[in-house]
Amino acid sequence: MNETSQMFESAEIGHRIGKKDYRQSVPMLRQSLLSAQYQLLEKSGFPVLILINGVDGAGKRATVNLFNEWMDPRHIRTEAFVHTRDEDRVRPEMWRFWQALPRKGRIGVFLGSWYTEPILAQVQQREKKAIYDQRLDAIRHFERMLVAEGVLLVKLWLHLPKKAAVRHYETLDKDPINAWRLTPQGRERLDRYDDFIKACEIALRKTSTGEAPWMVIEGTDPAYRSLTAGQYLLDAMRQRLDGHAPMLGTAAPVPPPPLDSRTLLDAFDYSRSLAGKSYARKLAQLQARLNALTRDERMLHRSLVVVFEGMDAAGKGSTIRRVTQAMDASRYRVVPIAAPTDEERAQPYLWRFWRHIPGLGHSVLFDRSWYGRVLVERVEGFCSEADWMRAYDEINAFEAQLTQAGAVVVKFWMAITPDEQLRRFQERKATPHKNYKITDDDWRNRDKWPDYARAVGDMTDRTSSAGAPWYIVASDDKLFARIEVLTHLCDRLEAALAEKVPKKRR
Amino acid sequence: MNETSQMFESAEIGHRIGKKDYRQSVPMLRQSLLSAQYQLLEKSGFPVLILINGVDGAGKRATVNLFNEWMDPRHIRTEAFVHTRDEDRVRPEMWRFWQALPRKGRIGVFLGSWYTEPILAQVQQREKKAIYDQRLDAIRHFERMLVAEGVLLVKLWLHLPKKAAVRHYETLDKDPINAWRLTPQGRERLDRYDDFIKACEIALRKTSTGEAPWMVIEGTDPAYRSLTAGQYLLDAMRQRLDGHAPMLGTAAPVPPPPLDSRTLLDAFDYSRSLAGKSYARKLAQLQARLNALTRDERMLHRSLVVVFEGMDAAGKGSTIRRVTQAMDASRYRVVPIAAPTDEERAQPYLWRFWRHIPGLGHSVLFDRSWYGRVLVERVEGFCSEADWMRAYDEINAFEAQLTQAGAVVVKFWMAITPDEQLRRFQERKATPHKNYKITDDDWRNRDKWPDYARAVGDMTDRTSSAGAPWYIVASDDKLFARIEVLTHLCDRLEAALAEKVPKKRR
Repeated sequence: MNETSQMFESAEIGHRIGKKDYRQSVPMLRQSLLSAQYQLLEKSGFPVLILINGVDGAGKRATVNLFNEWMDPRHIRTEAFVHTRDEDRVRPEMWRFWQALPRKGRIGVFLGSWYTEPILAQVQQREKKAIYDQRLDAIRHFERMLVAEGVLLVKLWLHLPKKAAVRHYETLDKDPINAWRLTPQGRERLDRYDDFIKACEIALRKTSTGEAPWMVIEGTDPAYRSLTAGQYLLDAMRQRLDGHAPMLGTAAPVPPPPLDSRTLLDAFDYSRSLAGKSYARKLAQLQARLNALTRDERMLHRSLVVVFEGMDAAGKGSTIRRVTQAMDASRYRVVPIAAPTDEERAQPYLWRFWRHIPGLGHSVLFDRSWYGRVLVERVEGFCSEADWMRAYDEINAFEAQLTQAGAVVVKFWMAITPDEQLRRFQERKATPHKNYKITDDDWRNRDKWPDYARAVGDMTDRTSSAGAPWYIVASDDKLFARIEVLTHLCDRLEAALAEKVPKKRR
Repeated sequence: MNETSQMFESAEIGHRIGKKDYRQSVPMLRQSLLSAQYQLLEKSGFPVLILINGVDGAGKRATVNLFNEWMDPRHIRTEAFVHTRDEDRVRPEMWRFWQALPRKGRIGVFLGSWYTEPILAQVQQREKKAIYDQRLDAIRHFERMLVAEGVLLVKLWLHLPKKAAVRHYETLDKDPINAWRLTPQGRERLDRYDDFIKACEIALRKTSTGEAPWMVIEGTDPAYRSLTAGQYLLDAMRQRLDGHAPMLGTAAPVPPPPLDSRTLLDAFDYSRSLAGKSYARKLAQLQARLNALTRDERMLHRSLVVVFEGMDAAGKGSTIRRVTQAMDASRYRVVPIAAPTDEERAQPYLWRFWRHIPGLGHSVLFDRSWYGRVLVERVEGFCSEADWMRAYDEINAFEAQLTQAGAVVVKFWMAITPDEQLRRFQERKATPHKNYKITDDDWRNRDKWPDYARAVGDMTDRTSSAGAPWYIVASDDKLFARIEVLTHLCDRLEAALAEKVPKKRR
């Protein structure tokens, strides 16, 4: 027992189940799994995501195949995260997993997961222990978000004692048909079995949370492993289908309104303006500067994510155009955020933004963004209080992932006064080709101005960071606002391009 | 004029427009373009796709940027097809373009297109002239399909005489900030200017069709080029918005019913069956064979696309499970085709199948497929006669693209008799956990059996090819059917793996 680590001890005691028992139990289990799957499909209330991780040879692939065999494979989406593709390399690490999430009603099976690379980096001593801890914290955070978004997360860890793992590898190595499947990573994990187990133990301990615990299963005996995995999955699905939502702890209190009712936006100086002549000169200068910055070769190792938020008629659209005019259209995309499509509705909230995240060398400008959650959805009650309350934290984590992957993140709140908004509404109403821009909703939203102002204050308080700052831009004067936005954008980009590029992005 | 080829002659005469004229015309043009764009967006009736091709230095990038500047960039999707990414390399050539198509109501701008690679291959003499002709034919076919699907296709060719092209390159080469943007391809196109123009001329001649003509624009003078391109785009959009649908020629007559009313399905032998014991043995053998074939290293250079079609209750689902049981779940996906999502509805018909097309080394099994167009949509009148009539041809072209890219395409029609279907319906109705599988629609479809039978006959007549054959499988006996399907699948795969892999897929 000297090779055993504490956490996996109970998965090295030679668990075994008789052939007869196995044959007796399987039909009933399959039937139950299939019926749970169809119930899930019919209700379409939540997705099921199964992570399969563990020691090579412990039956990871076999378990994935088993689930597909026991249930209806038409409604299961299996993803193996084995190779890193070009498209993954140029984006934040988590992007590939977001793209592969199952939609509501479906089952996703991930062979390998967001644990694979951090564990490997630790085993290979490419990263310090402190970094490892940070990454595991980020994972815990991410999984908590998934669960809060309704995902049923089932985490299976298949274990195999050292001797059995070595035996497995050697058998495969001698098999002429299958030897090509052995990877250098696999060989390495085996050579460093003890280090690997140590790193895994840390990962499992840190991420076995109440809402998404790990299930460790001994993989030595296929019958034992299969029945245990199947039964565990069934229990998890049944519990959820029968109406037991996960416990996520109580939410913190909603931020109270300022005692004097004054918000950031009330206290803001809206009087700044710019004369037309000075504007034209500055615009030309700044656009030239932005053009040079975005064409700079160093931009190939960076990406740019710009968020535009603001009350209706704050001038987001026209400002965006002044920015894009200076950029090469093949390297930017503008994403206007409107009502989600049905594919977007079937996914966790942030999914519809992740799908637009640019690769290195590219820029995306969001006309409205993920901040909708803590603005319109909060104020209009489109989501629950708990949902928007947890969103600040989730958004910070999301943006931290972007910046870590080389994105320059810049956020603008285009601030106008109620009077100016009214003036612009009336102007639009009077201009035939701008008529379509003004709807009943716009007038209704005006009535909730104080609620929005409070939401904006809470938002900037909680989501301004050094890596992804908010810029509040006085926008009663459109010309002044455009120059402000361009100036901040150029400054941020210039500072970012001066930074050293980490090795892994080069 | 000795360097001029005939087709581009009128684009080498030094077209030019005065600064004053330009300045006078632009505001009105922009206003009209913008208003056309908003009308397009509001109606969401069709997408606009603009291809920008031509000689380097003729203002391709500038034109892309111009469209984004003159219109609202938030509703324009610009794609530059410059680098080939991993994900493109492992899939049919056209896949990347399908993924980038704009949805209805939006404008897509492609910098480079499906013309780029065939022309380059011709210039570099990598491909014979006969192949070039074939590729251009395929393109013409593809564009005709886009237009029939409602896409407004605007093809701009920007031309530059040789001297001007050389001058452009040399200027850029000396520019310290932008020299990195010059690609080896660009240098090569310039060195072989005459060959390049010759290849382009052939391409333009062959693909200037009535429904999607080329507009050749001289790129020497930016003002002339910009106004011409903008005005041409505006005219095209206005014409379509004002209700002029493209002329696509009259459809061929609908295939007449056989004079004796007997269809392929009537004449089929449904009596074949298999005893349970023999089945178990054969199933085990075939699954082992399929397993070895799909695990074969040579499969890394192939993909597998299997289509399952058949009347309701023909046994598609249970047969698919017998197939997938033999395969590694991380390398296959089952795609059940149900009602399209709204994102799918906003795209040409084949889009929702293209998005699931596997890369090399992977398999996709379609439970129902693109044949819905010539089956259920034809019979139920969900699409126009012209739509399903042209679908045979489009499907053949689609499948030819798959096979050319290394896919093994196998199609099964699971044939049952009306009596057997009735028996299965009644059985399902009586079985609690299969109850959900039977709907009113299923009973209604039964009444249209003869129409479906006729549609199946036309379908197999018109879409069976050596590269993508149909197998009609007698399925009144489920066991027999499964063995048949597995046998055909193994035979096809075995034959395919024995083929030599073309160099470009290795």
